[in-house]
Amino acid sequence: MLAAVITAFGGPSVFGLAELDPPIAGPGAEIVDVTLAGVNYADVHHRRGEYARPPLPGVLGADVVGRRRADGRRVAALLRTGGGYAQVAAAPAGHVVEIPDEVSDEQALAVLEQGLTAWHSLHTVGRVTGDDVVVVTAAAGGVGHLAVQLARAAGARVIGCASSEAKRAFLAGLGAHATVDSNHPDLGAALDETPTLVLDGVGGRTFEQLHAALAPFGRTVAYGRVGDVRDTVAVDDLMTSSTGVHGFWLQRVLDDEELYRSSASRLFRLSGLGMLTARIGGRYPLSGVGQAHADLEDRITAGKLVIDVNRLG
Amino acid sequence: MLAAVITAFGGPSVFGLAELDPPIAGPGAEIVDVTLAGVNYADVHHRRGEYARPPLPGVLGADVVGRRRADGRRVAALLRTGGGYAQVAAAPAGHVVEIPDEVSDEQALAVLEQGLTAWHSLHTVGRVTGDDVVVVTAAAGGVGHLAVQLARAAGARVIGCASSEAKRAFLAGLGAHATVDSNHPDLGAALDETPTLVLDGVGGRTFEQLHAALAPFGRTVAYGRVGDVRDTVAVDDLMTSSTGVHGFWLQRVLDDEELYRSSASRLFRLSGLGMLTARIGGRYPLSGVGQAHADLEDRITAGKLVIDVNRLG
Repeated sequence: MLAAVITAFGGPSVFGLAELDPPIAGPGAEIVDVTLAGVNYADVHHRRGEYARPPLPGVLGADVVGRRRADGRRVAALLRTGGGYAQVAAAPAGHVVEIPDEVSDEQALAVLEQGLTAWHSLHTVGRVTGDDVVVVTAAAGGVGHLAVQLARAAGARVIGCASSEAKRAFLAGLGAHATVDSNHPDLGAALDETPTLVLDGVGGRTFEQLHAALAPFGRTVAYGRVGDVRDTVAVDDLMTSSTGVHGFWLQRVLDDEELYRSSASRLFRLSGLGMLTARIGGRYPLSGVGQAHADLEDRITAGKLVIDVNRLG
Repeated sequence: MLAAVITAFGGPSVFGLAELDPPIAGPGAEIVDVTLAGVNYADVHHRRGEYARPPLPGVLGADVVGRRRADGRRVAALLRTGGGYAQVAAAPAGHVVEIPDEVSDEQALAVLEQGLTAWHSLHTVGRVTGDDVVVVTAAAGGVGHLAVQLARAAGARVIGCASSEAKRAFLAGLGAHATVDSNHPDLGAALDETPTLVLDGVGGRTFEQLHAALAPFGRTVAYGRVGDVRDTVAVDDLMTSSTGVHGFWLQRVLDDEELYRSSASRLFRLSGLGMLTARIGGRYPLSGVGQAHADLEDRITAGKLVIDVNRLG
């Protein structure tokens, strides 16, 4: 099989196409003949050697769609140990989910990882209801634009924060009831409504200002941070305002197969109904993984970057 | 009318009986002919002049039951600006609630303030369900022992923390499924089950150890602190563990009359059904307010301290 392989940590040019032995299904794993692989920002950190360093030469890539070798069914899978930028992947059986006919490979790929974060931040942790006024930070981003749609689907009012008029128009098109310029110096004052739930993937000033704007009994769910942000919260302040702060990390869902499967099914069902549509930022051949990484780092794309592993150039 | 009045800030001996003009019902207030007044630890702080100092001479006391002058109905009321240790009180109309026939004056008084904190910490903030494993700290205390009963009534499993065998036996009698010695050096290790919700009125080590024991997606609700504790939480840690910390302050319920009334009604209904029984720590005449304060400070009592304002000695 062909794969995009790194033989050193570094810039986007470290990727090279190579013919490798296909992976073998160990215990608890399933072989997937990959059609599309996703590029995520975590892959950039792995490529640079900034996270737990994979062995070299190595194949990065943490989400794929394709056909399960055993039965030929269309499936999507998250690969926590990489191996996605390849024509064949070995996926943990517990993390392989079937894709309904109504959902394309591309949408299944684009909805799964970011959609799970959005879903669980909103539902499992945030316990969103139709009474909520939800603010989504980085709302045009990978998780954010799915969270906007999921919060709407839950019946809540949704306010999206984004940095440009084009992004805010995109959010309005997704059904956001209102939008806010994320560069506004006082995000709390920029809101016309008092939020009851903030979904935050940014941190720092954004987190502090929006949390301070919450109604009593409101809560912030932090699922990610941009840059080296180290927010802390004083419990006394939480008591005075009667608010809460929750954290979310997708690994905790992956640790719970039943939760993972049931939520993936819900995401695919909403996708099939047209209530959840992931933005696609670009489609690249297997030889273009380096270009995809460069584009992601330069932030010139918006939406999921997809590698067509059977296109070579 | 007679009242227990303070003319200076200080020890329990600052109280003296005095004949005062009864309060006049200003706009939005109702006159209550008091039968019983409650003593709360916040009153001790007020008496010492440690909180916002009331004008002197002054009447402390923040909760009463009695009869509403206008219609003679039995009512309970919270008095945020004091005035409870007296035979007549002026209460904010929004905080006056009728007492059902099945609930005694004493139980209505003892259930209201601490019960509201327990109720909203569990329900409004903690969003308890029958799937939860709830740990209650200071579980034999004023809020704690009501929280144990309310969590049971919600169908949850309940683990109570208390410092003595007698207190733990009391908790078992209230229906706690398990108890833990709050002096155990490692409270997380002392639990036989993984909690999903911690209700904490202690802070410090208790807060940290029990929060660290939470299951993914679990949450701690902090409704009070013992002593000068200043807990802080790192959002990164909340993300890694996928847990949350909420604060609660009763004032936020008092700010919302509908919420206050609906929850007070629920507490009284549970009390009338025998599903919620407040412990009474002692009953004192109006001349015994100083003694009640002394007993509360010496922590020789357990349960609500009640002043019978029409008994003079």
